[in-house]
Amino acid sequence: MQNAIINVNGQILGPQEAKISVFDRGYLYGDSLYEVARTYHGKLYLLAEHLQRLQKSAELCKIKLGQSLKTYEAEIYRTLTAFQGLPGNNKVEAYARLIVSRGSGRIGFGLSTLETSTLFTVIVQPVEPPSVQQLKKGLQVAVTERLRLDPRALNPAMKSGNYLNSLLAYLEATENGYTDALLCNADGHLTEGTTFNLFYVRRGIVATPPLDVGILAGITRWKTLELIQALGLPFREIRFPKERLYEADEVFLTSSIREVLPITSVDGKKIGKGKCGPITQKLLIAYRQSVEKELSR
Amino acid sequence: MQNAIINVNGQILGPQEAKISVFDRGYLYGDSLYEVARTYHGKLYLLAEHLQRLQKSAELCKIKLGQSLKTYEAEIYRTLTAFQGLPGNNKVEAYARLIVSRGSGRIGFGLSTLETSTLFTVIVQPVEPPSVQQLKKGLQVAVTERLRLDPRALNPAMKSGNYLNSLLAYLEATENGYTDALLCNADGHLTEGTTFNLFYVRRGIVATPPLDVGILAGITRWKTLELIQALGLPFREIRFPKERLYEADEVFLTSSIREVLPITSVDGKKIGKGKCGPITQKLLIAYRQSVEKELSR
Repeated sequence: MQNAIINVNGQILGPQEAKISVFDRGYLYGDSLYEVARTYHGKLYLLAEHLQRLQKSAELCKIKLGQSLKTYEAEIYRTLTAFQGLPGNNKVEAYARLIVSRGSGRIGFGLSTLETSTLFTVIVQPVEPPSVQQLKKGLQVAVTERLRLDPRALNPAMKSGNYLNSLLAYLEATENGYTDALLCNADGHLTEGTTFNLFYVRRGIVATPPLDVGILAGITRWKTLELIQALGLPFREIRFPKERLYEADEVFLTSSIREVLPITSVDGKKIGKGKCGPITQKLLIAYRQSVEKELSR
Repeated sequence: MQNAIINVNGQILGPQEAKISVFDRGYLYGDSLYEVARTYHGKLYLLAEHLQRLQKSAELCKIKLGQSLKTYEAEIYRTLTAFQGLPGNNKVEAYARLIVSRGSGRIGFGLSTLETSTLFTVIVQPVEPPSVQQLKKGLQVAVTERLRLDPRALNPAMKSGNYLNSLLAYLEATENGYTDALLCNADGHLTEGTTFNLFYVRRGIVATPPLDVGILAGITRWKTLELIQALGLPFREIRFPKERLYEADEVFLTSSIREVLPITSVDGKKIGKGKCGPITQKLLIAYRQSVEKELSR
């Protein structure tokens, strides 16, 4: 937390000074949205796509964004520049989190209680991508008994500050010795992980749950689907129960921070040879190549 | 918000100064618990029961409370005393909200990212109970299409900082001209309102959904059940669809702040005579009598 720069509604601050009101609805109700992007060679990757998703989350959450996406973009870059200006940070790749809360005001649900428009925070700190070791070892995940949120109750497509569902799944899995968790919906279909989208490979075919199973439309998920097409890999979006994963040749996750990362066991059952499989490897390489290509444009 | 006193981890502050870190997990993830109690004659009613429920929420949320319930109680009273000491507040009845977050630390789900134990905030401000006018008119509620959270995903019995499910139901209902919202579960059974428990009366029998339909175990719900027994009113806990309410003679809510309050229309359909019914009236009077009795002990 020391090596971080925070922007609170336009004010650039250090981690100790960066504070928000106890009347911020993000604090009171988790009534906020967020996005996370990371840098490669000091430039934020797919930030425009993240901000477009913020706009979609805002619609789902009935939040009227107080700033234009252009302003958020400028504020994120301003924070990033301050971060890169810290001693020794010149070449440190950054993680940038934008949080937009509905605002601050009297306690109560009604919009009439609001005394401000939306409030934002940007947190920039060193990104912590998986180590080479972690990439080799992959994740050992559990499918938790805890179900993913039903989209009819709270839509996982909305990236909000209500994160207890995934967080508790994570704690339940790690308590039992796993490194992370996958969640099913009430129909017994796998949805996604706590902070990532899910893919598997079986007999050369890549598969992932469709959006309407109740998941976040991940930016890296979408990018990976593009790469799968570009590589000409057989592919389908399909609903499946956890048993399907047990029989998979490869399982992997996608996330903006963790990119394409192998999952080498599910519920204690080894997947394939228990290490990064060939298609996962191919997609990770393709992902990193596409990052290089797009950022050098 | 002006006439409020806040206690942030033991420090008594005014509303402008009361701030928490952007790294507080309450802000980042809604990873917090809360309780609300109010005063009658300057004394907090059923505070011990609220704190016991906090303990239960903490277990459901795997939060290890950093302070004893006795300490929270003392801090709430210290904040209340400061509030009552403000000019003109001597006789103002108070609303007291305790928020306990999992703590503050590096961004991440794991407990190893925490750099503090739980952090707490107490907000004390004037209570705003329903006016006599509102008591007479009652609430005009809608049963939203939005479902209540499934306990298998995120248990409504846990009073947490993840409040978007109820908050969005509230916004959806009020946008359509209603004053508040009721939510069903996926089986089509009514659960509770956005911030209150639900009762109805039909042919002299009082009914309310059982806890396992997926609701908060309301302190006022529990108190109301005691009063129903004491008054010898026929009663049952029962699952029911929204159509049951349309045929009810009376519908009412219970909440620590709103006590026992009539609901006079549901989905635009008038309930009974469209005003506070006799059993609702009887229970409200009994509730207030029991408050007086217990606080004068």
